Amino acid sequence: MSSGDKQEYKLTRISADYWRVTIDHPPFNIFGPQSIPMLDQVVTEIERDATVKVVVFDSAVPGFFQTHFDFVPPLETTTSMAPGSTGLPPLPDIFVRLTRSSVVTIASIRGRASGVGSELALACDMRFASREKAVLSQFEIGGGFTPGGGPMVRLPRLIGRGRALEVMLSGNDYPGELAERYGYVNRAIPDAELDEFVDTLARRISSFDKQSLADIKQMVNASTLPSNTEVAAEWSSFIASVQRPAAQRAITELMGLGLQKDPDVEVNLPRYTAKVNARH
Amino acid sequence: MSSGDKQEYKLTRISADYWRVTIDHPPFNIFGPQSIPMLDQVVTEIERDATVKVVVFDSAVPGFFQTHFDFVPPLETTTSMAPGSTGLPPLPDIFVRLTRSSVVTIASIRGRASGVGSELALACDMRFASREKAVLSQFEIGGGFTPGGGPMVRLPRLIGRGRALEVMLSGNDYPGELAERYGYVNRAIPDAELDEFVDTLARRISSFDKQSLADIKQMVNASTLPSNTEVAAEWSSFIASVQRPAAQRAITELMGLGLQKDPDVEVNLPRYTAKVNARH
Amino acid sequence: MSSGDKQEYKLTRISADYWRVTIDHPPFNIFGPQSIPMLDQVVTEIERDATVKVVVFDSAVPGFFQTHFDFVPPLETTTSMAPGSTGLPPLPDIFVRLTRSSVVTIASIRGRASGVGSELALACDMRFASREKAVLSQFEIGGGFTPGGGPMVRLPRLIGRGRALEVMLSGNDYPGELAERYGYVNRAIPDAELDEFVDTLARRISSFDKQSLADIKQMVNASTLPSNTEVAAEWSSFIASVQRPAAQRAITELMGLGLQKDPDVEVNLPRYTAKVNARH
Repeated sequence: MSSGDKQEYKLTRISADYWRVTIDHPPFNIFGPQSIPMLDQVVTEIERDATVKVVVFDSAVPGFFQTHFDFVPPLETTTSMAPGSTGLPPLPDIFVRLTRSSVVTIASIRGRASGVGSELALACDMRFASREKAVLSQFEIGGGFTPGGGPMVRLPRLIGRGRALEVMLSGNDYPGELAERYGYVNRAIPDAELDEFVDTLARRISSFDKQSLADIKQMVNASTLPSNTEVAAEWSSFIASVQRPAAQRAITELMGLGLQKDPDVEVNLPRYTAKVNARH
Repeated sequence: MSSGDKQEYKLTRISADYWRVTIDHPPFNIFGPQSIPMLDQVVTEIERDATVKVVVFDSAVPGFFQTHFDFVPPLETTTSMAPGSTGLPPLPDIFVRLTRSSVVTIASIRGRASGVGSELALACDMRFASREKAVLSQFEIGGGFTPGGGPMVRLPRLIGRGRALEVMLSGNDYPGELAERYGYVNRAIPDAELDEFVDTLARRISSFDKQSLADIKQMVNASTLPSNTEVAAEWSSFIASVQRPAAQRAITELMGLGLQKDPDVEVNLPRYTAKVNARH
Repeated sequence: MSSGDKQEYKLTRISADYWRVTIDHPPFNIFGPQSIPMLDQVVTEIERDATVKVVVFDSAVPGFFQTHFDFVPPLETTTSMAPGSTGLPPLPDIFVRLTRSSVVTIASIRGRASGVGSELALACDMRFASREKAVLSQFEIGGGFTPGGGPMVRLPRLIGRGRALEVMLSGNDYPGELAERYGYVNRAIPDAELDEFVDTLARRISSFDKQSLADIKQMVNASTLPSNTEVAAEWSSFIASVQRPAAQRAITELMGLGLQKDPDVEVNLPRYTAKVNARH
C-alpha cells in the first residue's frame, strides 16, 4: 500500500462489536488518490470481521469532517487504479461496499463535509450533524464538473428530486439545521451533545443481535440503493466532466486563489466558486 | 371466529361514509393471534361496503394506540393460520388489503404505537399523532428479531433510507414531534386538538366523490407500495428471526422483567430492551 | 397561435443564460385552453435556445401564482388539441418537457398555486415559496375529479405516500411553512426576502457550466421522474373523472357560487369545495 507514512483513517476498536474510524488528514481532511487504498483497507477490515456490528466515522481535524478530492495529483493516478471487488472503480466501489455491508455505519459530522466528505456520509447508513459546526455540500458544479461518488444517485432517493437538484446545481453550503430539514442528515444535534448522542446510539445498536441487524439493513437496501450501473454512470459523468475545459479552467483558478492551501478558500468554498464563475 | 367475548376492534358507523375503528384491548392494546380474525373481519367489512369512504383508526386505551405482538401464545398459533385473500399470511395480508383498499384510512395516534401498532399506522393512508402523547417505534431489534408487518418495506419509501434504518436498527422511541420531522407521521397535532383535527379532515374527505377518491389513491399506490413479494419477504424474515436463540433469550428475559404485565416495561420499552441486551 | 391579444407568460431575458417567465393573466392567473399554446411556446423557446441555463417562473398578479383550469370553455377545446412532441396531450406534454429539459427551472411562488399552478411548480426543478403569501393546493377532489397535470405521479415521489395522499384527498390549502415541512417546496422564505433569494440562486446557477448542469439534472431525473405512461394515465384519469356527473354537479355549483369571478371563492377554495359537497 503506497499510502505514505500517515494513516488517514485511524481505526479504533472501542469493543469487538463497536469500532470507530477517525479521519485524520490535516489541515483539511482532503481526499486524494492516496486515500483510496487506506479507506479500502478499513472497509475490507470491516467486511472481514465476523464480530463488528457498528462503525462510526468521525474526524480528528477541527473544522473538517472530510473535504473534496485532491486536485494536485494527475487524474490518471485515480483512473489507472484497478477496479474493486464490485467491479466498479475504487472510490464508488468502496462506497457501494459500505452501503451493502451487513455492518451498521454512522457518520458523525462535525466541520465541513464537502464533495467526498458528503459522499462518504451518504454511503453511511445514518448521518448525525453538529448543529453549529457541520456543513454539508456538493460543491462540484462550482468547479465545472459533476459529483462522482454517489450523490447523483443517492441524494434524490434520500431527500427528493427538488432538494437534491438544489444541493447539486447550486453547490451551496448546507449547515446542520438546514441539512436536517432537507433530510440530508438524520438529525442535527447541538455540538456539545453530538459525541455522546452518537456514542450512546452506537453502543445501543452494537448490543443487538448481529444477524437481525444485517437482515433489517439488507431488506431496507433492497428498496433504497441505486444499482451498480447507476453508480458507474455517475462516476463516468464525473471523470468525463472533470476533464472538460470548463472544469480545467475553474479548478486552475480555484487553485490559484488558494484552494487546498488557504483555509479561507476551503471554509468559504461557495464564495470562491462564485468568484471563478463570475462572467469572464 | 374464535375471538372470545371481547371485540378488540370496535367499529362505529359515524355515518354511512365515515367509520371509526377503535382499538380496545386493555391494558396495553397488545396484538395477539386472536386479534388477527377480529382485524380481518373489520377490514373485510370495509372492503365489502359500497358506501364507506373514510375510516379512522384510534384507541380507547389511555397510553396505548396499539402495541406489539403477544409473546405468550406459541408461534404456531399464528403461522398455522390460512393465508388471506392476497395469498399472504394473515397479518401482512390484512395490512396489504388496507393499503390497496379504495377506502381512505387515517391513523389517529395517541399513546404508544410500537411494533404492530406502528405497522398498522404505516398501512393506513395518513397518520396524525398527538404531539404530547404519541410515541412510535419499531422495537423488534431490541428483542433480537426483525419487524414483520411492513416497516422494512414501507418505512424506507416513506422517510428515506437513513431515518428508516435508524428507527429499525435502534429500536428507539419516536415521539410525535420527532416523528413529524422524520415524516413517520403526516403531522404532530397538539393533543387537545387532535380529535377535532382528524374528525374535521375525515368528514371533509368523506363528503367527496367516492370514485375520485379511489382513483387518486390507486394512482398514488402505483408508485409507492411495495410488491407482495417484498411484503412476504419481510414476514419470512420476522418468522425466521423470532425463532432464533437470540430472540428466544431476549424475549424470555423481557417477559421475566414484566413485559405484557408491568406498565413500566411497556411504557419504557427502549430502556428494557437495553437491559436485556447488556453484555451477557 | 390563437392566444388572443394578451401573452399570459411574459418572457424576460435577464441575461443570455438567465430568463424569467412571469405569469400575467389577471385577476386570478387562471389557466385555460388558450394558455396551452402560450406556455408551449415559452417551453419551446427554452428548449431551442443554446445558451439559457436557468428559468425562473413567477407571477405578476398579486395573490395568485397560477390557479386552476378554466371551467368555462368546453372540455373538447382541450381534448381536441394535437399531442405534443412527447406524444402526450399538450398539458402533460409541456410539464414532461420542462422536467426533462436540460435547463434548470425554479418556481418562485407568491400567492395561490392551486391545481395547474401547483402542477407547474411540481414540474419545475425547485420550488421556493413566500412564507406569508404562498399557498399550494391540489383542490380537484373538491370539484369531484382527480388532478391531471402531474401531482398523482410526482407528489408521492417528492413527499411520500402519506402526505401526498393527504394533499390530494383533502384538497386543502398548504401555506408556505407547512409546504416546506412536507417537502412540497424546497423552502419557505420570508416574503420580503423571496425575490432576492431566488434571484441570487438563479444567478449563481446560471454562472456555472451548462453541460455539467445538464448532466446532473439528467442523472437525477433517471431515478426520480415518472414514466410517460404514468403521466398519461394521470391525464386520462382527470379527463374521465371531470366528465362524470359528480364533477359536473360540483363544478356547476362552484361556478354558481362565484368561482372564476368572485375573489373570495378563489382565495377560500377549500371552504367553497366543502360547501358544494355538504350532504345533498
